[in-house]
Amino acid sequence: MTIETHSVTDELAAFASGLAWSDLPPTTQNAARSTFANVVGLAVGASRNPAVERALRALTAFGLTGDVSILGRRERLSATSAALVTGIAMHVEDFDDTHLRTVLHPGAPIVPAALAVGEVVGGSGEDVLTAVVAGVEVASRVGNGLGVAHFDRGWHVTGTVGHLGAAVAAGRLLRLTPEQMRHTLALAATQAAGHTEQLGSMTKPLHPGKAAADGVEAAQLAARGFTGPEGSIEGRRGLAALMTSDADYEEMLRALGSAWETEKNAFKPYSCGIVSHPVIDAAIALRERGVVADTIAAVEVTAHPVVLDVMGVKEPDSGLRSKFSVYHCFAVGLLDGAAGPKQYSDERALAEEVVALRRKVNVVVDRTVAKDACSVRVLLDDGTTQEVEVEHATGSIDRPMTLEQLRAKFELVVEPVLGAATARLWDLAVGLDSEDSLAGLLATSVPSA
Amino acid sequence: MTIETHSVTDELAAFASGLAWSDLPPTTQNAARSTFANVVGLAVGASRNPAVERALRALTAFGLTGDVSILGRRERLSATSAALVTGIAMHVEDFDDTHLRTVLHPGAPIVPAALAVGEVVGGSGEDVLTAVVAGVEVASRVGNGLGVAHFDRGWHVTGTVGHLGAAVAAGRLLRLTPEQMRHTLALAATQAAGHTEQLGSMTKPLHPGKAAADGVEAAQLAARGFTGPEGSIEGRRGLAALMTSDADYEEMLRALGSAWETEKNAFKPYSCGIVSHPVIDAAIALRERGVVADTIAAVEVTAHPVVLDVMGVKEPDSGLRSKFSVYHCFAVGLLDGAAGPKQYSDERALAEEVVALRRKVNVVVDRTVAKDACSVRVLLDDGTTQEVEVEHATGSIDRPMTLEQLRAKFELVVEPVLGAATARLWDLAVGLDSEDSLAGLLATSVPSA
Repeated sequence: MTIETHSVTDELAAFASGLAWSDLPPTTQNAARSTFANVVGLAVGASRNPAVERALRALTAFGLTGDVSILGRRERLSATSAALVTGIAMHVEDFDDTHLRTVLHPGAPIVPAALAVGEVVGGSGEDVLTAVVAGVEVASRVGNGLGVAHFDRGWHVTGTVGHLGAAVAAGRLLRLTPEQMRHTLALAATQAAGHTEQLGSMTKPLHPGKAAADGVEAAQLAARGFTGPEGSIEGRRGLAALMTSDADYEEMLRALGSAWETEKNAFKPYSCGIVSHPVIDAAIALRERGVVADTIAAVEVTAHPVVLDVMGVKEPDSGLRSKFSVYHCFAVGLLDGAAGPKQYSDERALAEEVVALRRKVNVVVDRTVAKDACSVRVLLDDGTTQEVEVEHATGSIDRPMTLEQLRAKFELVVEPVLGAATARLWDLAVGLDSEDSLAGLLATSVPSA
Repeated sequence: MTIETHSVTDELAAFASGLAWSDLPPTTQNAARSTFANVVGLAVGASRNPAVERALRALTAFGLTGDVSILGRRERLSATSAALVTGIAMHVEDFDDTHLRTVLHPGAPIVPAALAVGEVVGGSGEDVLTAVVAGVEVASRVGNGLGVAHFDRGWHVTGTVGHLGAAVAAGRLLRLTPEQMRHTLALAATQAAGHTEQLGSMTKPLHPGKAAADGVEAAQLAARGFTGPEGSIEGRRGLAALMTSDADYEEMLRALGSAWETEKNAFKPYSCGIVSHPVIDAAIALRERGVVADTIAAVEVTAHPVVLDVMGVKEPDSGLRSKFSVYHCFAVGLLDGAAGPKQYSDERALAEEVVALRRKVNVVVDRTVAKDACSVRVLLDDGTTQEVEVEHATGSIDRPMTLEQLRAKFELVVEPVLGAATARLWDLAVGLDSEDSLAGLLATSVPSA
């Protein structure tokens, strides 16, 4: 452990403590607003999801209560429990956001921590958004430095570095000193966890929920004098040594405070594992050309190997599992022309026409195909073929969702819960930095009885 | 993933759900009583430790309260928060217990989970002790199967498999079905965490505290229908694949229900890292021979390499750091004839006579020396030497602490807090299985105002 690498945790802590909204270029401020608004919509949309309902019942079973809000609901919980439930809600539909280089989904672990502590301390909208940016920067940068080996081993990046981002966001709102922030990072680093074995179960969204809750708790502990070691990220037996084989500490600090990872957060147009998104684009393109399921004899998808690795479920037996089936993704894309929460319901996972079509799909992996690309060749019953090439999926870095698309997605998920109040919630979420507090946003998120 | 290995999580879940107190041989029942009583004493003894005070202030800062007791204190918290604080208290003095093969300290993560849920559900003493045994068995067995590579990489075993033990103990008291228990294990496995980088800081005892709290939460979630995947321990990207390089699933299940790892839990006679215990035995033996610090020119310790790896701090600047200094351990052993909490205070870590003596100590590592052995050679100013060989340290498997020694240790830590009520608390703790509930124990643990 050299002095140089030993300063990684310190430098990230000092950066996070010192960041100001006015330091951020307008493009970063816009990215922060979008990151925030996107997951706020998802939390409201999923506020009655079974995983959310069960978590709420479990957390209140032993009489636990508190003063902190949950988006879209009337119940109040402690700050940590509210962050846990909100993190589950934001991630459970696999519809949130992705820092593509690391496969980190930053909104779900980080925004709930900022919301919970922001509400308790009465922080302004600007305070909350600045905390989110600090969290996204720290989490993404540590993720960059952990490299692909971290994800490839089987760590769910949203659960691991999500802890750091949530802790930093919470710590900002508690106005921690750089030294307290370093302790917060130590407390969070040693709790970093989450296995990709859990994908396709309710425990996947528990990962960002716990990251958010543990991050809030870590910041509270550090604020009261609880301490950890130096170098918790880069130490000999610290986070990086234990969780990757190719740590790059320079990557963690590269252009810190002048280049912004927050701008590289992409929003999901489809509510499933992101590596299937090019295949859904292809299926929707085929549908738009008039290809009909009944006339298809066989489908051959050529894609990067990660697609089968993460999305290889052939016969998903539930909505949650269908989010990890590239076969299901192609089928609903072609049959429904969409891939939102409705397409990943238990009902749709078992629907006859979906099952029939997905059984016709074969996937060939090819390491030379980019992760955001694919090609699809369809053999029709009449012997003709149709081919589609997707160069960059919708929602990728090279083809990002526009603000209009993001608003349409927000409306898709929020309107079933809030109806006419959806437009007001969008305005409050995407314009949070103009608000004096979170009160308006939180109140508007709850449907009238 | 073969069908055979796929059943590890299932088999452990079924075992844990089905275990009955009457299944246990008397030797295992005695080991359970000792395991329980030992950490109850430590929690009361450390109930005003700064790490405990700070954690309590942090958890109550946002108005969090509840109905669940904390040993030795009047405050009430939620079940998860009470388990967190109690876990910190049991481990903060590094004086608890050790499953030697795995270096798991089972009491601190598992007993707080059983206490918190046992109090909420009104469980009997027998229920609580059976839950503790189920937890110790599952945690130790998974630890056995993760092998030495798990610890060697830098995982703090008490934080990792401690999560599984705590979840199982909590799940037992919630009377979970085997299937719910499997989900509980999934929820706990994916949260397994804790880096040995954090040794010597307050975050070390946070590891069992979080294991206990997360375990309680996992069981509550599973009880309300929250689910995880199958095979969370042995799956392709499950706990074992991510946290060790030499998983042995047969070891996890070997003689399950007929051989009892609980009997292999050893109690610490000294409040520091266990690998230094042989050196303390040697120092005390030298003192008993009349060797005086002033007359020592140099000390040469020959020990297993793990001693320097874990306990290599040369100049500890705090009580917490001194627990990881074999040099400090030798010095207090010779100067004080003891190595309890008083010997690892900030004051003692900086005392002139201690600093002077520990600077004379040199450690030579030798892989052929057993971990519970050492030899020490002292060169005196008059040119003569004294040598001591320790074959098996006090508190090792081959030289376990007797019940009388354990009671003396209990009195050492509890009497400063409880005075005359200490004897009553010992009787309640070591005879817990005769109690109808935890009420007597919890009430007796609190000092009268």
